[in-house]
Amino acid sequence: MDKQQMRTTITAAKERLGLDWAALGQGIGMSPVWTTSACLGMNSMPKAQADALCEMLELPAEVSTALQAFPHKHWDKAVPTDPLIYRFYEMINVYGETIKELIHEEFGDGIMSAIDFSMDISRVADPKGDRVQIVLNGKFLPYRSW
Amino acid sequence: MDKQQMRTTITAAKERLGLDWAALGQGIGMSPVWTTSACLGMNSMPKAQADALCEMLELPAEVSTALQAFPHKHWDKAVPTDPLIYRFYEMINVYGETIKELIHEEFGDGIMSAIDFSMDISRVADPKGDRVQIVLNGKFLPYRSW
Amino acid sequence: MDKQQMRTTITAAKERLGLDWAALGQGIGMSPVWTTSACLGMNSMPKAQADALCEMLELPAEVSTALQAFPHKHWDKAVPTDPLIYRFYEMINVYGETIKELIHEEFGDGIMSAIDFSMDISRVADPKGDRVQIVLNGKFLPYRSW
Amino acid sequence: MDKQQMRTTITAAKERLGLDWAALGQGIGMSPVWTTSACLGMNSMPKAQADALCEMLELPAEVSTALQAFPHKHWDKAVPTDPLIYRFYEMINVYGETIKELIHEEFGDGIMSAIDFSMDISRVADPKGDRVQIVLNGKFLPYRSW
Amino acid sequence: MDKQQMRTTITAAKERLGLDWAALGQGIGMSPVWTTSACLGMNSMPKAQADALCEMLELPAEVSTALQAFPHKHWDKAVPTDPLIYRFYEMINVYGETIKELIHEEFGDGIMSAIDFSMDISRVADPKGDRVQIVLNGKFLPYRSW
Amino acid sequence: MDKQQMRTTITAAKERLGLDWAALGQGIGMSPVWTTSACLGMNSMPKAQADALCEMLELPAEVSTALQAFPHKHWDKAVPTDPLIYRFYEMINVYGETIKELIHEEFGDGIMSAIDFSMDISRVADPKGDRVQIVLNGKFLPYRSW
Amino acid sequence: MDKQQMRTTITAAKERLGLDWAALGQGIGMSPVWTTSACLGMNSMPKAQADALCEMLELPAEVSTALQAFPHKHWDKAVPTDPLIYRFYEMINVYGETIKELIHEEFGDGIMSAIDFSMDISRVADPKGDRVQIVLNGKFLPYRSW
Amino acid sequence: MDKQQMRTTITAAKERLGLDWAALGQGIGMSPVWTTSACLGMNSMPKAQADALCEMLELPAEVSTALQAFPHKHWDKAVPTDPLIYRFYEMINVYGETIKELIHEEFGDGIMSAIDFSMDISRVADPKGDRVQIVLNGKFLPYRSW
Amino acid sequence: MDKQQMRTTITAAKERLGLDWAALGQGIGMSPVWTTSACLGMNSMPKAQADALCEMLELPAEVSTALQAFPHKHWDKAVPTDPLIYRFYEMINVYGETIKELIHEEFGDGIMSAIDFSMDISRVADPKGDRVQIVLNGKFLPYRSW
Amino acid sequence: MDKQQMRTTITAAKERLGLDWAALGQGIGMSPVWTTSACLGMNSMPKAQADALCEMLELPAEVSTALQAFPHKHWDKAVPTDPLIYRFYEMINVYGETIKELIHEEFGDGIMSAIDFSMDISRVADPKGDRVQIVLNGKFLPYRSW
Repeated sequence: MDKQQMRTTITAAKERLGLDWAALGQGIGMSPVWTTSACLGMNSMPKAQADALCEMLELPAEVSTALQAFPHKHWDKAVPTDPLIYRFYEMINVYGETIKELIHEEFGDGIMSAIDFSMDISRVADPKGDRVQIVLNGKFLPYRSW
Repeated sequence: MDKQQMRTTITAAKERLGLDWAALGQGIGMSPVWTTSACLGMNSMPKAQADALCEMLELPAEVSTALQAFPHKHWDKAVPTDPLIYRFYEMINVYGETIKELIHEEFGDGIMSAIDFSMDISRVADPKGDRVQIVLNGKFLPYRSW
Repeated sequence: MDKQQMRTTITAAKERLGLDWAALGQGIGMSPVWTTSACLGMNSMPKAQADALCEMLELPAEVSTALQAFPHKHWDKAVPTDPLIYRFYEMINVYGETIKELIHEEFGDGIMSAIDFSMDISRVADPKGDRVQIVLNGKFLPYRSW
Repeated sequence: MDKQQMRTTITAAKERLGLDWAALGQGIGMSPVWTTSACLGMNSMPKAQADALCEMLELPAEVSTALQAFPHKHWDKAVPTDPLIYRFYEMINVYGETIKELIHEEFGDGIMSAIDFSMDISRVADPKGDRVQIVLNGKFLPYRSW
Repeated sequence: MDKQQMRTTITAAKERLGLDWAALGQGIGMSPVWTTSACLGMNSMPKAQADALCEMLELPAEVSTALQAFPHKHWDKAVPTDPLIYRFYEMINVYGETIKELIHEEFGDGIMSAIDFSMDISRVADPKGDRVQIVLNGKFLPYRSW
Repeated sequence: MDKQQMRTTITAAKERLGLDWAALGQGIGMSPVWTTSACLGMNSMPKAQADALCEMLELPAEVSTALQAFPHKHWDKAVPTDPLIYRFYEMINVYGETIKELIHEEFGDGIMSAIDFSMDISRVADPKGDRVQIVLNGKFLPYRSW
Repeated sequence: MDKQQMRTTITAAKERLGLDWAALGQGIGMSPVWTTSACLGMNSMPKAQADALCEMLELPAEVSTALQAFPHKHWDKAVPTDPLIYRFYEMINVYGETIKELIHEEFGDGIMSAIDFSMDISRVADPKGDRVQIVLNGKFLPYRSW
Repeated sequence: MDKQQMRTTITAAKERLGLDWAALGQGIGMSPVWTTSACLGMNSMPKAQADALCEMLELPAEVSTALQAFPHKHWDKAVPTDPLIYRFYEMINVYGETIKELIHEEFGDGIMSAIDFSMDISRVADPKGDRVQIVLNGKFLPYRSW
Repeated sequence: MDKQQMRTTITAAKERLGLDWAALGQGIGMSPVWTTSACLGMNSMPKAQADALCEMLELPAEVSTALQAFPHKHWDKAVPTDPLIYRFYEMINVYGETIKELIHEEFGDGIMSAIDFSMDISRVADPKGDRVQIVLNGKFLPYRSW
Repeated sequence: MDKQQMRTTITAAKERLGLDWAALGQGIGMSPVWTTSACLGMNSMPKAQADALCEMLELPAEVSTALQAFPHKHWDKAVPTDPLIYRFYEMINVYGETIKELIHEEFGDGIMSAIDFSMDISRVADPKGDRVQIVLNGKFLPYRSW
C-alpha cells in the first residue's frame, strides 16, 4: 500500500465514521495539522500513533505500515493553482524579502528551519468576519562558517 | 523616483542612522512587518506615515511620494532560490493541502485572504536554540454562489 | 465518485434529456454560469441545489455528494491553448495594467475579489454580427495595513 | 520615442496636471479603458485623438506620433504576479471551460473576438462593500468550414 | 466516444478501405485540409457532412456524433518537436515580425483571423524537386476603439 | 553596426523618406517579404541588393555591410504574445498534424523546407471584409535512408 | 500496432535471437545507425527492408506495417537527462556557434540538413582508452532569396 | 577584458585583416574548430597559442590574457532557435537513443566524453549539392562501480 | 521486467527479509551507495553481483537480468522537491562557482568526472547532533585541445 | 558596493597580488571553500575575517562592509550549463534517491542540513590520473512531530 492508496483509505474511513481531523489528532495525542499532513502522506507517523489512528478508523495494519513509511515529498506544480493554496504562495513572494530582513535583523545570517518546525491553524472570531490564524514556528539555524 | 530607487535610498539612510526596522515601525505607529514591506516596495504607505518615515530618515518629499505609490507586486522566480525564502515555499507546498483540509473543515469552502491580511514575526526563546515564530492572520472569504 | 466522474455523468445525463445549462440553472434557482461551473467541478454546490439538480437529471445520490464536495481547482497549462479560452488570457494580459490603473484610480490600492465574485454571460444582438457580453462583478478588497 | 518612453512621459504629465484617466478619455471623446490602454502602449490611437490628448497634456508632437504607432503587444510573464491581475488570470482558468460551454450552447462553435472587442469598468455601490464591475463585449466569430 | 477514439476509428477505416484524405474531402464536398482537421479532432463537422463521411467509411452513428462535437483544441508542447511541424514553427518566428509589418502597412492595425480562416495545400512541380505550397487565407480584423 | 542598430537605422530612414516595404522591395528587385525580413535582421542580403537599398535610403556603407552579415536568428518567447503573430502560432498547432498527414499522403515521408522557401502576402478583396492571403512555398525534402 | 509496441516487440526478438544492431543492419543491407533508428520508431522503413527485418526476427507482418509507418518524431524533455545523451546536448551548445561560423565561412549563409542526412558510429582503438567516433553528414542547404 | 569583449575584439581584427578561421588555426598550429571555439570564448587557450594568435591579429596582451582564462560555459536557451544550430539539436533528440544503443552494444555501459573530445568540420563535394561532414571523436568512459 | 518493476520487487524482498542496504552491499562485495543505486535502477550491475544479490533476496533470474541492463537515467523535475534532495541541489547552486574556482586553481581547466566517480555516505558522531558525511570522488578530466 | 562589485574587486586584487584562494583562506584562518564562497558573494564574513582579508588584498573598508552583508543567494538557471557544475547537478539527480534511502536507513526520517554544513575539496593522487575529492558534512535534522 503506497501513500496515495493510504490517503484514499483514511479519508474514506474518516468520512464513513463522521470524524474530523481535530478529533483524529486528539485521539492520537498530536496536533490536527501534523496529523492531517501525515494522513495526506506528507509526514511519517511513529508506530504508536499510526496504530492508534488505525484503531480509531477501524483500518487494517497495512495502513499503519504505510503511515510509518518515510515519504518522498513532491508536488507537480511550481506555482500552485488552487486559490486557497495560491494565496499562501503569493504571501511568500510578496513578503519573502520582508521576512528575510526581519529574521536577519533579529537573529543574524541564517534561516528558519522547515524541518524542526511546527504549524497551528485556528479560528479568530471577528465581528467583521471571522479570521484564519496560522502560526509557523521553526528553529533558527545560523549559517556555519568553517 | 521609482520603488527600486526608493528602496535603495531608504535602506542607505536607515544604515547611516543606525536604525532598525522595529524602530522605524514604532516611529510611525505601524508594525515592523508592514513597515518593512512598504519600504521594500511591496505595499503603499498612507501620506501621514510616509511623511513621518521620511522625517525620521531625513529624506526628501519625493521619497514620501514614492512610498505612497501603489506598487506593481512582481517577482522573477516561480521558485525562490534564497534558502531562507525557499524554506517557506517548501512549507506551503508540503502543508498546502493540509491547510486546505483544515480551513475547509472549520469554515467551509472558501479561502484565507492575502489582502485583508497581517503578519507578525517574533523570537521565541528556547534552550535548544531560539525559534522564529510567524503569525499569519487573514479574513476567511467564503466562495459566493449566485 | 470524484469530480471528474461526476462531470462525465452529469454531462451525459444532460445530453440524454436534451437539457441545456440555462434550464438546469433555472431549475435549481441559480445562474447558468455558477451552475455550469459547479457541474464541471470548479465550485461546490449546497445540498439543496445538488439534490434538486440530481432529481432533474435522474441521477443517484452519490452525484449530489460529489457536487457538494469542496473542489481542488487546478489547471494544467499556464497558457491555455483552446482559442476561445486563450482570447480571454490575451485580454487579461493586454488590458491587465489598464484595469489596475482604473481600479486604483477609483478605489485606491486593493484588488477585485475572485472569491466574492459573480459572472454573467449573455447575447447582444447586433446587425453586424451578434456579440458576447460577459459581466464580471467582484467585491473591492482594500489592502490592509497594520 | 518608443512606447515605453511615451508611457512614462504621459504618466508624468497626467500626474503633474492632476488629471485622471476618466478625464483624459472624456477629453478625447473615448472610453477610459481604451484611452488608458493606448497611453500604456497596448493600443494605437488615431491621429485626431492622439493630437487632442497631447494638447490636454501639453506634450510635443512626437508623443502623438508614438501614440499612433501600431504596438507590439507583449508581456513577460506567462503567469502574472501582481495580485490584482492574477485574480483575473485565476478567473479565466477557473471559469474558462464554463464560458466555453455557455458560448457554444448559445452561439455554436466559435469564439468571442479579442480584437472586435470593448471593455468597461465601473463601481457598483454595495452596503457590504462596493464592487468592481467589468463588462467584456466581443463579437462572436463562428469557425469557418471550407 | 471522444475525439481521440473517433480519430483512431476513422483512421483505421480509411486505411482498411484504401481511401485518402482528398477522396474523403471530395466525397463530402469539402476541402481536404478542413476534412482532415475535423477527422483528427480539431474542428467540428456539421451533421450532413458527418453523416456522409460515416457512410463512406461504413462507420456507426456515434462516430458522426463525435465528429459534430465542438472540440477543445489543445496541444502539449509549447515548441513542437516533429521536424515537419517544427519547420512551420520556425517560419512563424523567423517571419512573424515581417508578416506583422506587411499586414500593418497594407491594412492598418489589426490581425488576420485564425477563425474566419481557410488553408489549402498543393504540390507544385519543379524540375529541381517538387515543392509544397500552402495558402493561408484569413479575414483581416481591425482593432476596435471605443 | 549590429543587426539591431541596422534595423533601427533602416526603419527610421524609411519613415523619413515616406517609403513602404513594397517600394523598397521593388527598388532592389526582390519581393516585399524577403526584403522586409532582411531589413529586420532575419536574412542576409547579397551585396548588390544591400548597396541598392542603402542608396535608396541614403544610408552609409556600414548599413550595407550589416545587411550582408549572416544573421543569428533568435526569438525570446517560445509562445509569441502579439495577437497577430500568436494567431499564426495557433494555426500551426491546430493544423500541424493535418499538414503532416496531407504532405505525407502526397509526397511520402519528409518535410517542407524552411530554408529553400519563399513566402508572399497579398490582399484579397471581399465584400464581407477584405482578407489576408499568405502563400508558403517550400521544397519537399524526403528523409534519406542509408 | 503502434511504434511503441513495435519497438518493444523488435527489441525482445533481437534479444531472444541474440542478434545485435550491426547484424540486423547488415541483414537488410542498411547501416546500423539507420536500422536502429527505424526499429526504435524514429524513421520509416521501406517495405523491402521491413519485410526482410521481420523475417530475420521471425516477426509477423503487422510489425513490418508498423516499421513502414511515417513516425511522429517527439521527445519529452527539452534538456535530455541521460548522461550519454546529455553530453551530445552539451557539445551542441558549447560548439554550436563555432559550427555556425565555420559552415558560414566555407559555404555561405545556410544550414546543414537534418533530413538529407546520415550518421555513422565507430570504434577507434587508442592505447589511452578506445574512442567513439561519430560522423555526421548532411547536405548544405543555402537560404533562398526571392 | 572579459570573454565577450575579447570575442568582439578578435572578430573585428579578423575581419579587418581579411583572415579566416582556418588561417588562424593554421597560424597557431591548432585545428580550426578548436581555435574558433576558443576565440568565441568557449575554451581556454594555452599561453603560447594565445600569444601567437594576438600577434597574427595585431592585438594587445590583454586579449591573450582573456584567451587564457578558464571560461564559464553558458547558453541562455534550453532549445536553440537559430536554424543551423537547431538542426543539430534535432539530430541529438531524434538519434539520441540510437547512439546510446550502439555505443552500449560496442563498448558496454558508459558514455562518450565531451571533455576528452575533438571535432572536425569539412566539405564533401557531391554532384547533387556539396555536403557538410562533422566528425565527433570522444574517449569512451565506462561507468565505475565501487 | 523493466527497471521500475525490478526496483519494486527488490525493495519488497529486502523488507520481507529485514535486510538493509549495507548488508546487501556487503553480501555482494560492493559499497552500499553503488549497490543501492543499482537496485533503484540508476546503475547496471555485472552478472556476478546481480546473481549474488538475487540469491540473497531469494529472487528469480529475471531480476538479475534486469539489474544487468544498462539504464536510461532520467528524472522528471528540473528542480527536485523532496527536502532531503533539494538541500543538495541548493548546495550545488550556492557552492557551484566556488567548486569551479578551486578545481581550476588546483588542476587547471577541466571537470570532475561524474562517470569515473564514487560516493560514500557515513555517520559522524557529534555531541551537538550527529552529522552526515558524504564523500564524492571523481577523476579530474582536463579539456582536450586539438 | 554590492556583492557583485565586491566580487570583481576582490578577484582583481587577488590576481594582481598573485594570491590563490588557499592562501587567502589560510591568511584569515578559514577554509579555502568557505573563504571563496564568501568572496564570490554567497556567504557573509564576520568583521574580523573581512578586515583581515581586505588588509591582505590592500582593499578599502567598503569591501569589508560588503563582505559582512548577508547575501541574497540566487542563481538564474534551474539547470546549470557549465560542464563542471552540471556534472554535480547530474550526480544529485542520479544519486538523490540513493542518498535518501541511506540517510533514512541510518538516521530515520529527516534531512542533512545545508546550513549547518561544511565542504572541503582536495586532490587525491592516482597513477591513472589524479582525482578530485569533495567532502560534504552536514548536521542531520530529524523531522519534528507535534
